[in-house]
Amino acid sequence: MSAFLQKLEAATKRNDSMLCIGLDPDPKLMPEMPVAKFLCDIVEATKDLVCAYKPNFAFFEAMGLDGWRALQEVMRVMAKDVVTIADAKRGDIGNTSAAYAKATFEVWGFDVATVAPYMGYDSVQPFIDYKDKGVLILCRTSNPGSADFQNLNAGGRPLFEQVALKANEWNKHKNIGLVTGATHPDELKRVRELCPDLPLLIPGVGAQDGDLVASVKAGLDAKGGGIIVSSSREVLYASKGRDFAQASRKVAERLRAEIQQAAKA
Amino acid sequence: MSAFLQKLEAATKRNDSMLCIGLDPDPKLMPEMPVAKFLCDIVEATKDLVCAYKPNFAFFEAMGLDGWRALQEVMRVMAKDVVTIADAKRGDIGNTSAAYAKATFEVWGFDVATVAPYMGYDSVQPFIDYKDKGVLILCRTSNPGSADFQNLNAGGRPLFEQVALKANEWNKHKNIGLVTGATHPDELKRVRELCPDLPLLIPGVGAQDGDLVASVKAGLDAKGGGIIVSSSREVLYASKGRDFAQASRKVAERLRAEIQQAAKA
Repeated sequence: MSAFLQKLEAATKRNDSMLCIGLDPDPKLMPEMPVAKFLCDIVEATKDLVCAYKPNFAFFEAMGLDGWRALQEVMRVMAKDVVTIADAKRGDIGNTSAAYAKATFEVWGFDVATVAPYMGYDSVQPFIDYKDKGVLILCRTSNPGSADFQNLNAGGRPLFEQVALKANEWNKHKNIGLVTGATHPDELKRVRELCPDLPLLIPGVGAQDGDLVASVKAGLDAKGGGIIVSSSREVLYASKGRDFAQASRKVAERLRAEIQQAAKA
Repeated sequence: MSAFLQKLEAATKRNDSMLCIGLDPDPKLMPEMPVAKFLCDIVEATKDLVCAYKPNFAFFEAMGLDGWRALQEVMRVMAKDVVTIADAKRGDIGNTSAAYAKATFEVWGFDVATVAPYMGYDSVQPFIDYKDKGVLILCRTSNPGSADFQNLNAGGRPLFEQVALKANEWNKHKNIGLVTGATHPDELKRVRELCPDLPLLIPGVGAQDGDLVASVKAGLDAKGGGIIVSSSREVLYASKGRDFAQASRKVAERLRAEIQQAAKA
């Protein structure tokens, strides 16, 4: 088992949680305060409730250098025993992807990266080659436009299934997983059938209206685990008042319980 | 005609050039000096020879905050009348892509962004909605792994052709183009047939061994233009000595001439 999977399993067990909180800071939705403090307070208030945190780079980049400084501060407060996922959906030619992998794993120090599959194996390989790290490949994403290409019949099956099969084939270090949105539970189930052993990151519950219960049931592996259910806006923006961190904690507690309940049903 | 296409046409005409220099700083390949100074000197030495510069974000990100500071300095010296392409291959769900588009066009101030198509329309739309800016969608990329998915038979034609057709369909503001590598001139020709009016960014000449002459011939539009031929390593790393900027200029001069010659043949 790769170091990434060990860490994920340990965090899931310790916090009795398959919940990941997506860190997507949007100054328009936040209380008026520095972004780093906002996120650090939420991390402090929820760190015993999650198996992972997932900062999405877009929201930090949109704040210029200040955003990257905020991300540095957040990295410092995330507990060493919770999985950190760099959600940046990288993909480029081999030597360039190697620079992205270095940035994600060595410069930033994340445990896991999300990557886009369109450019094929050599765009993903530099990430996979960090054997202790995790790589989550976009498969069936949660957004409305995802059907444009992912559901095309590609060589006899939908494109997202081809991606799932390639993920199995490429998984020599047992550190690959897939991103499969909660907005398509039937297709999530199909991915689980094709990839019984891969961890699945499941975004799209909450603001995107994905079906939490159906997605958890569809995504669980044979051991009753193997999923990371991610919510961003619903948790982060639970309150714009001074109680924002405690309000986030309450939403995270509820989501954690809903996931556990669905998993045990 | 969109502001992006006007700027591209004007720069191409003024400098008699369809050459783009990719700015991929790699400290291992450079002379020993600050990255910002290295790139600024190359920009100064070549700015009358190109229609565009294309910094690839991976190489800046791999240097941490210092990398982003270097990119800021480079942005300042790039001539206002040469097209600036942010090569970051972005793609995420709608509200997240909107943050990336804001970062690229408003925070950084680039003219053009490269984007990945896998997540479909709502992942690309926030970029397109900046009507004055350009959006280059990955179509048939130059790397070896590109065949893994891009050449799958998807609904009766290769996936990259489906992407090309969607690009036509989405091009309501006339600001979309495609990325089609010089390593596949036959497929580049096919893309040009399907998309007679879209500008094509053609990377892969030089270090990646793409066929410059065949690619130029295959990519030209009916007016004998519509291509941006990009070279990175061959130009940047022409010399590790004190003459590096002049050595880069010489390679850029040669490439510009080779492109013009192929276009006129």
